[in-house]
Amino acid sequence: MLNNNQSVIDYKMQTTFTTSDIAEDIYQLITKLYPICRSITGNGFRETLKIIQQYIPLSIQQVPTGTEVFDWIVPKEWNIKEAYIKNSQGKKIVDFANSNLHIVNYSIPVHQKLSLQELKAHLFTLADYPNWIPYRTSYYQETWGFCLSHNQYLELKDEEYEVFIDSSLEPGHLSYGEYYIPGDSTDEVLISCHACHPSLCNDNLSGIAIATFIAKYLSQTTPRYSYRFLWIPGTIGSITWLALNETKVNNIKHGLVLSCLGDSGNFTYKKSRIGDAEIDKVAAYVLRNSKRNCEIIDFLPYGYDERQYCSPGFNLAVGCLMRSPHGTFPEYHTSADDLNFVQPQYLAESFLQCNSMLYILNNNKIYYNKNSKCEPQLGKRGIYRAAGGHKDSELNEMAILWVLNLSDGHHSLLDIAERAGMSFDVIKYAADTLLTHDLLISEKPK
Amino acid sequence: MLNNNQSVIDYKMQTTFTTSDIAEDIYQLITKLYPICRSITGNGFRETLKIIQQYIPLSIQQVPTGTEVFDWIVPKEWNIKEAYIKNSQGKKIVDFANSNLHIVNYSIPVHQKLSLQELKAHLFTLADYPNWIPYRTSYYQETWGFCLSHNQYLELKDEEYEVFIDSSLEPGHLSYGEYYIPGDSTDEVLISCHACHPSLCNDNLSGIAIATFIAKYLSQTTPRYSYRFLWIPGTIGSITWLALNETKVNNIKHGLVLSCLGDSGNFTYKKSRIGDAEIDKVAAYVLRNSKRNCEIIDFLPYGYDERQYCSPGFNLAVGCLMRSPHGTFPEYHTSADDLNFVQPQYLAESFLQCNSMLYILNNNKIYYNKNSKCEPQLGKRGIYRAAGGHKDSELNEMAILWVLNLSDGHHSLLDIAERAGMSFDVIKYAADTLLTHDLLISEKPK
Amino acid sequence: MLNNNQSVIDYKMQTTFTTSDIAEDIYQLITKLYPICRSITGNGFRETLKIIQQYIPLSIQQVPTGTEVFDWIVPKEWNIKEAYIKNSQGKKIVDFANSNLHIVNYSIPVHQKLSLQELKAHLFTLADYPNWIPYRTSYYQETWGFCLSHNQYLELKDEEYEVFIDSSLEPGHLSYGEYYIPGDSTDEVLISCHACHPSLCNDNLSGIAIATFIAKYLSQTTPRYSYRFLWIPGTIGSITWLALNETKVNNIKHGLVLSCLGDSGNFTYKKSRIGDAEIDKVAAYVLRNSKRNCEIIDFLPYGYDERQYCSPGFNLAVGCLMRSPHGTFPEYHTSADDLNFVQPQYLAESFLQCNSMLYILNNNKIYYNKNSKCEPQLGKRGIYRAAGGHKDSELNEMAILWVLNLSDGHHSLLDIAERAGMSFDVIKYAADTLLTHDLLISEKPK
Repeated sequence: MLNNNQSVIDYKMQTTFTTSDIAEDIYQLITKLYPICRSITGNGFRETLKIIQQYIPLSIQQVPTGTEVFDWIVPKEWNIKEAYIKNSQGKKIVDFANSNLHIVNYSIPVHQKLSLQELKAHLFTLADYPNWIPYRTSYYQETWGFCLSHNQYLELKDEEYEVFIDSSLEPGHLSYGEYYIPGDSTDEVLISCHACHPSLCNDNLSGIAIATFIAKYLSQTTPRYSYRFLWIPGTIGSITWLALNETKVNNIKHGLVLSCLGDSGNFTYKKSRIGDAEIDKVAAYVLRNSKRNCEIIDFLPYGYDERQYCSPGFNLAVGCLMRSPHGTFPEYHTSADDLNFVQPQYLAESFLQCNSMLYILNNNKIYYNKNSKCEPQLGKRGIYRAAGGHKDSELNEMAILWVLNLSDGHHSLLDIAERAGMSFDVIKYAADTLLTHDLLISEKPK
Repeated sequence: MLNNNQSVIDYKMQTTFTTSDIAEDIYQLITKLYPICRSITGNGFRETLKIIQQYIPLSIQQVPTGTEVFDWIVPKEWNIKEAYIKNSQGKKIVDFANSNLHIVNYSIPVHQKLSLQELKAHLFTLADYPNWIPYRTSYYQETWGFCLSHNQYLELKDEEYEVFIDSSLEPGHLSYGEYYIPGDSTDEVLISCHACHPSLCNDNLSGIAIATFIAKYLSQTTPRYSYRFLWIPGTIGSITWLALNETKVNNIKHGLVLSCLGDSGNFTYKKSRIGDAEIDKVAAYVLRNSKRNCEIIDFLPYGYDERQYCSPGFNLAVGCLMRSPHGTFPEYHTSADDLNFVQPQYLAESFLQCNSMLYILNNNKIYYNKNSKCEPQLGKRGIYRAAGGHKDSELNEMAILWVLNLSDGHHSLLDIAERAGMSFDVIKYAADTLLTHDLLISEKPK
Repeated sequence: MLNNNQSVIDYKMQTTFTTSDIAEDIYQLITKLYPICRSITGNGFRETLKIIQQYIPLSIQQVPTGTEVFDWIVPKEWNIKEAYIKNSQGKKIVDFANSNLHIVNYSIPVHQKLSLQELKAHLFTLADYPNWIPYRTSYYQETWGFCLSHNQYLELKDEEYEVFIDSSLEPGHLSYGEYYIPGDSTDEVLISCHACHPSLCNDNLSGIAIATFIAKYLSQTTPRYSYRFLWIPGTIGSITWLALNETKVNNIKHGLVLSCLGDSGNFTYKKSRIGDAEIDKVAAYVLRNSKRNCEIIDFLPYGYDERQYCSPGFNLAVGCLMRSPHGTFPEYHTSADDLNFVQPQYLAESFLQCNSMLYILNNNKIYYNKNSKCEPQLGKRGIYRAAGGHKDSELNEMAILWVLNLSDGHHSLLDIAERAGMSFDVIKYAADTLLTHDLLISEKPK
C-alpha cells in the first residue's frame, strides 16, 4: 500500500508533488470523462480529447472516413443524440440518457414498434450479473441493439414496444489525440492508450488519465528519449496511426500500452513480442522490486493495441501494463466498471510504477570504463576507503567495482544491477560517481 | 489403450482403414516372417524381402562380398541348411530345425565328435532365464556355436557328442530392400529398419512390418516429401547404403529408425544427434500429446542404425522410435521375444504414432503473413465474430491470431502450436482457413 | 578426507610422491615463511622470494618506485626494523618484535609521547574477538598505527605513552617472483598468488606454498602448455605485471589465483568473468567429482588479483581457487590465521585438487574422428568385442563410441565426458586407445 504523503520526484524534474495530489488529479479527470459516450469515432471521442487538452497541448488528428489504412478502411463516423425503448404505456423503460451502455455502440438509427419477441433479438444482458448492464459494440456490422440488466429483462411484459435510436452513421472522421515531447534523442518512447470506450472506468479511463498525467509531468522536462503519446480508438486507431506514420515507426525504441490501471488487483506486465526487449526487462525489474505481487506474462496476440504494434511486420518493443487484465474481472465491459471500481490510491500507484519504468528507461545507459585494463586507483580520487585490511570494506564499494567491471559497452546499468544483485539506484549512483571522476565515458574509447 | 474401431485417415489419402484391420495386417506379416532364419547376408534376408514385395514393390539390392564401404568390407554370405548336436545315443538334443536361435549366427561349417568339456566352449545359455534360448552372432570372427536353454545345458551328461553344422560362408552378396516414394519435393524422409535378426519379433520384425505398412499406405499418396524406406542388415547395411549412396545423403532432411515397436511398453523416442531437429520436435510433440507415458531421450552413440546416420560426418536428423528400448526388457535377444511378446494392438498403436509423426512432418509448414503490418480485418472476411465487446470472444480466434502473429518465416506451424499452447491440428486448421482467404503465403512476400 | 598414503602421480611426471610427503613439505615451507614481516614492498617480500628460490629457480623482478603502471604508480618501498609502545613506566606494552601484526603495515616512522586519548586514534582492535590482533594496512595514505588485542586495549591506563616506529618509506622497488616453465606450446597457464601479507597462514602462505610445489613438480615435466607462476603483492603486483608485460598477456589461455587453501573448509571455485571458460569447466568438474561438498560461484569484482586479470580490458580466463573464501571465516586478517589454522592434510588436498585441474587442462584435447562417416570397424582392430548379440556389451565400449561420435573438432574430451556422463579418465583412456589405432587425429582432416 502506498503512503499517501510520499513525495514523488520525477526524473530530471524540478517539480515535486505528493502522491495524494496525483491520486486526486487522476481520479478527477476520470470523473470528468466518465459521462461522455465515446466510440471509435464521433463527438464523444473529440470531446474527450478536448478535456485532455485542458491538461496538455495534444493535437487532435482527423482522418476522413474511407481512408485506407493497411487492410482496413476508416469507418463512418457514429454519433448519437437520444435512444430509448418505450413500453405500451409510453414509458421509457430503457433510456440512453441514463447510461451510455444502454445502447449497442455503433447502433444504426431506428424508430419502430415491435413485439417483445422481435425486440428480444436486439437485447443484451448478463444472466450471471443480473444487476449490471453489459457493454456491447457492433462497429463493422450495421445493426442496432440495447443492453440492460438481466433483472429488468426478466420483467419485460409481452406487449408492444417502441424503439427509438436517434443516431447517425455517416462519412466523417476518425479522431485521435497525439502529443509529442521532444527529448535529447529522436529515439522515441511510445505511450498508447485506447480512448474509445464509453462510461467504463478501469478499461479505459484509467489508462487515458494516467497517460495524461505522465505526459503533463514529462512535458516539464527534457527527457533523454522523445515521447509520443497516443489517445486512439482501439484497433482501428493504432492501425490508422501506424499506416499514416510508417516513416516514424523506426524511431520507436520502447513503448507501453496502458489500460486497466485503476482497480485493486496486482500489477500485470505483458511482454512485447520480442520478449527480452529493454522495456520488458525494465518493467519486470520495477514490478518485481515493488512490494506487491505481480505477474509478468509472455506476449500473446490478443489484448489491446500492442497487437498492432507487435504485429510481425513492425515487431515493436511495446509491452502492456495493467493491474487486473481485461477479461479477468467480472466488472470488465459492464456498468460495474464504474467510478467506484477504480480508486485514487490504485491510480496513483499505477502512475508511480509507470513513472519508475520511464525513470529507469531514461537512465539505463551503457558506459565504457576508461581504465578498462586493471582497476583505476580509486583511493587517490577519494572514492575508496583509504585504510585497507578490514573485512567489511567491500560493502561500500561493490557497486563501484561492478560498474567498472561490466562497463564494457555491452551492459546497461540495469544489466549490471541485475548481475550484481543490487538495486538500479545503487548502481546508478555508483555510475554517476564514476562519471564525476571521469572514469566512465558514453562513447567507446579509441 | 487404442479403440479398436477407431478409424484412421492417413494424410492426403482417400483410403480409410480401421485400427483393427491394420493391427491384424501387421501381426500377420510378422507371423509370416517369424520362421525365417535371417542374418546380415544370405537367403533368409532375401526371402524376407521377397515376402515384403507382396505388399510393396521394393527393389532388392545386391552388393558383392568384398565391396569396400568406408572402413568396412562387405562380408562373405552366410547360409545354413541344417545343424544339430547329437548325444552318444545318436539323439538330436539340439536341433536348428526347432529354433533358428539354436545356432550362433554366422557359424562356420563343422562336423566332429567332442567331449562335453570341449563342447561347452561352444555353448551359450542364459542362467537368469533358464528356459529361454539366447540369440548370439559372430559375424566378424569365424567360429561356431550353439545356443540352448540353461535347463537343458544343466542336464547334459558327460559323454561324447556329435556336432554338425551344414552352413556355408562364401563370396556372395549383402542384400537389402529399398523403396522410394517420390513426393512433391526431392527432400527426403528416411525410414530405416534392420532386418537381419532371425526369429525375434519385437527386435526386429515389429519395425520391419510397421515400415512395410507405412510404405504401403504412403505409396497411395503424393506426400510433400519424398520417402526412402530401407530394410537393411544392422550396422553393415546402413554403412553400405551410406557408402554407395553418398550423393543422395544430402536429400535426407528427416528420418526415423524403427525397432522394438510391438511390446506393451511405453514409447521411447531417442533424439537425433542434432537434438533439436524438426523430427525431434515432431516426435516429442506426438508422444507427449498421446495419452500414454513416454520417454524422450537424448542421442547416445549406441543402438541401431541411427549410430551410422548420426555419425559426425553425416549428422543426419534421424531419430529412433521404440517402445521398450533394446536391452531394457529381459526377452531382448532371446527366444522369449516371440509371437506372444508382440501384440496386434501395440503394433497398431505404434503404426499410428509413427503415422502421426509423418502427418505432422508433412504439414509442418512455415508461412508468411501477407498482412504483416497490423492485423488483417478478419471481420470483413467472415473469419471473426461480428459483434465485439463480450469477453469470451477470444476463444474462437486465438489460433487465427497466433498464426498471423508468428507467420514471419521463422516459425513452423508446430512452433506456433507449442508457443500458443494449442494442438497442432487447431493451428493447422487456422492456417488452412487463412490460406483459403489468401492471408498467408508460402514464399516470402517481396 | 584424504588417505595419507595415497600415491600421487602428476601428469607426464616420472616422479611419484606420497600425500603425506607433500603435506609435510608444504607445511614446512609455510612454517619457514611465517615469521617474516611482508608488505607490498620491502625486504620481507624479497626474503620470502629467496626462500622460495630454495625450491625453484624463480627470478626476482625489481620495479622502481614511481614507475607508472596503468592508473597506478609503484609506491615507495617500506621497511621496518623496530616498533613499540611504552607505558609511563617505560615498559614495552606493544612490541613489533612479538608480532608482525602489531604494526599497521606501511606505518611511517614516528617517535613521540602522547596521552592515551591521542594514542587511541592510532590503535586498532577487534571487539568481537578480544584475544586476536587484527591485521591492518595503510599503503596509499601516509599514517601510522598499532594493532593489539581488544583485551589489552581495555586495560590501557590513562597515562603518557611513548610511541616508536623505526620504519622507512623511501624510493626503492616493488619486487615480485616470476617462474616460467616452457611447455610444448607458447599458450600459457597462469598461476598467481599474492605474497604481501605478513604472518597470516591461510591468506596467503597457503597459496604461496602450494604454488611453489606445483611449480616444483611441473618443472620436472614438459607440459602441454607453458606455465607462468607469479608471487606478487596483491593488487599493485598484478597491475604492475600486466602493465609491464602487456605483450605477453595474449598468451595466457587459462589461469588460477590461489589463496586460502589450508583451512578445513570446503572448496570454493570462483569462476572467471567469462564464466564458461575451459578453466571454469575444468575446475567445476574436478570439485564436483571430488567426494567433498564444494561451491562454484560466479565471478564478482571483489577478491584477489583475478580482479585485475578479469578487468574488462583483459578479461582473461582466470578463476580463483580457495577453500573458505576471504572474509567468510573469523580468523581472516587476524592473528588467529596462524600455523594452527592451516593443517598439512588440507594443504595436501588443495595441492591435489589443483594438480587434478592442471592434469585435465593438460589433457583436455579436441580431436577429429578420422572415419567421421559411419563408425570405423572396431572389431577388426581388436578394440571391440568380437561376438555380438548379448545385451551388456555396450558397457565396455560406450566411451569409445562417445569419443568417435563427438570428435568433430567441437568437443573437448571433458565436453565428451560431461555429455556422456562418464569420468574424464575413462574418456581419455578411450581417446588414447583410438589414437593408438590411428582412428583419431589432432588436426582437421582435409
